[in-house]
Amino acid sequence: MEMKMDSAALQAFLDRDFPQVSSDFEFEEVAPPFVTMALAASEKHLRPGGTVSGPSMFALADVCAYFCILSVLGPVGLAVTTNCSIDFMRKPQPGRLLCRMELLKLGKALAVCEGRLFSEGAPDKPVARASLTYSIPPSA
Amino acid sequence: MEMKMDSAALQAFLDRDFPQVSSDFEFEEVAPPFVTMALAASEKHLRPGGTVSGPSMFALADVCAYFCILSVLGPVGLAVTTNCSIDFMRKPQPGRLLCRMELLKLGKALAVCEGRLFSEGAPDKPVARASLTYSIPPSA
Amino acid sequence: MEMKMDSAALQAFLDRDFPQVSSDFEFEEVAPPFVTMALAASEKHLRPGGTVSGPSMFALADVCAYFCILSVLGPVGLAVTTNCSIDFMRKPQPGRLLCRMELLKLGKALAVCEGRLFSEGAPDKPVARASLTYSIPPSA
Amino acid sequence: MEMKMDSAALQAFLDRDFPQVSSDFEFEEVAPPFVTMALAASEKHLRPGGTVSGPSMFALADVCAYFCILSVLGPVGLAVTTNCSIDFMRKPQPGRLLCRMELLKLGKALAVCEGRLFSEGAPDKPVARASLTYSIPPSA
Repeated sequence: MEMKMDSAALQAFLDRDFPQVSSDFEFEEVAPPFVTMALAASEKHLRPGGTVSGPSMFALADVCAYFCILSVLGPVGLAVTTNCSIDFMRKPQPGRLLCRMELLKLGKALAVCEGRLFSEGAPDKPVARASLTYSIPPSA
Repeated sequence: MEMKMDSAALQAFLDRDFPQVSSDFEFEEVAPPFVTMALAASEKHLRPGGTVSGPSMFALADVCAYFCILSVLGPVGLAVTTNCSIDFMRKPQPGRLLCRMELLKLGKALAVCEGRLFSEGAPDKPVARASLTYSIPPSA
Repeated sequence: MEMKMDSAALQAFLDRDFPQVSSDFEFEEVAPPFVTMALAASEKHLRPGGTVSGPSMFALADVCAYFCILSVLGPVGLAVTTNCSIDFMRKPQPGRLLCRMELLKLGKALAVCEGRLFSEGAPDKPVARASLTYSIPPSA
Repeated sequence: MEMKMDSAALQAFLDRDFPQVSSDFEFEEVAPPFVTMALAASEKHLRPGGTVSGPSMFALADVCAYFCILSVLGPVGLAVTTNCSIDFMRKPQPGRLLCRMELLKLGKALAVCEGRLFSEGAPDKPVARASLTYSIPPSA
């Protein structure tokens, strides 16, 4: 799959279209069909005990899938999540939480991504796995 | 299913164990096997355009399932989400977003909930549906 | 939602388009947005011990969702399943297995159904729950 | 993850415990945490047009996840599927359909697998993806 937006282009898109959350996420690697992002966890993402909350993990998977699609599709602002299935498997370690997402299918109407969340340095002990479907607007 | 915690007991549990998010959620009705909660949406829950974000909807479904289980199980603090499948179907209307969750199974090891999110006044046009599995600790 | 195909019309469609499996399924009730079907379980649907197999339950949920959509959409042959999330919660009882499916959304490109499987006479102890997404062909 | 059952041991288990379907499936590779199996598709697995049916794909994913778990857990007969989320992405090609499943977590109570289905020779154009959770009996 050919790359239409690189890390800098995706970052600019994130900053412009999602200013409220853009400081929460960082691009680690953009190499279609893979995109890896990190959660820059702050107080609001944590549960008592310092564990990253489920909704924060969902948010990381969702945004990573979105930019995984855009990296190949180009700057289309209207793709929307239609389904997510997520399995939480282990407690995250303290430190950075990464998500590596793969674009499995980019059709005319639907895109499907699958990926894993893991604590930095421990990709073989995934904290969670997620699969997401996005609906692509007809004009895209 | 017999109720072990009513609305006041669940609210007290929420306030004590989840102080960071307790002001985000309100109990609408506790009538096992059903629990209905509302998202008190503030700026941080919204995307540009004023729509409630996907992670905020996930958070509402997750917390509502959790308290749906506790309403029957009692004050057990260690149940953890193991799986969530969520379908986003319509844009929320401006105004309050509700989630009505049903406890479908409360086993020794696993509890399964299913529910719908809808804008207040429009329960027949669901914004999203979600099913969640929680793991129950052995001591519970 | 207006009914475009009744029980007889759906049965005729099933017999014509799915001759290999049409004898496996029976229509119980067609009342959009709900359709209830039964699995006419034979030897091939059972696991040792006489329990209906997981794939047979999946098949019942899938066909029931399909005809739930067609009951409102009309005789469109090209809708395809794009996603299914299914939770198996209890062992089926001996006897007939039913599935009651609800059409939650019928959009231009996607339809979403949600339903439950239960042994006849025990709808409040669901054997499984399932949600399914179908892709609707553009010409439909 | 250490292998407790190799291809021959799994095949013997399949033949003994699932005689009704054992001729439908073949072991391609057993290399924990990965197990690859094939569907030996016959008339009953096909839809008009010669495409493998959804329930047959579900069955392949389910059996492959089961034996992926047993390859590491050993010959435990009572693990049961509690959840499956499956995305159908492309039509299978004529010919053999493979499933490569990975064991992501083997806990005391739950095991989680994730895998892809693809037509032989086309692993990079997956026909479907699936994630499954199995409940492990306490005695295991």
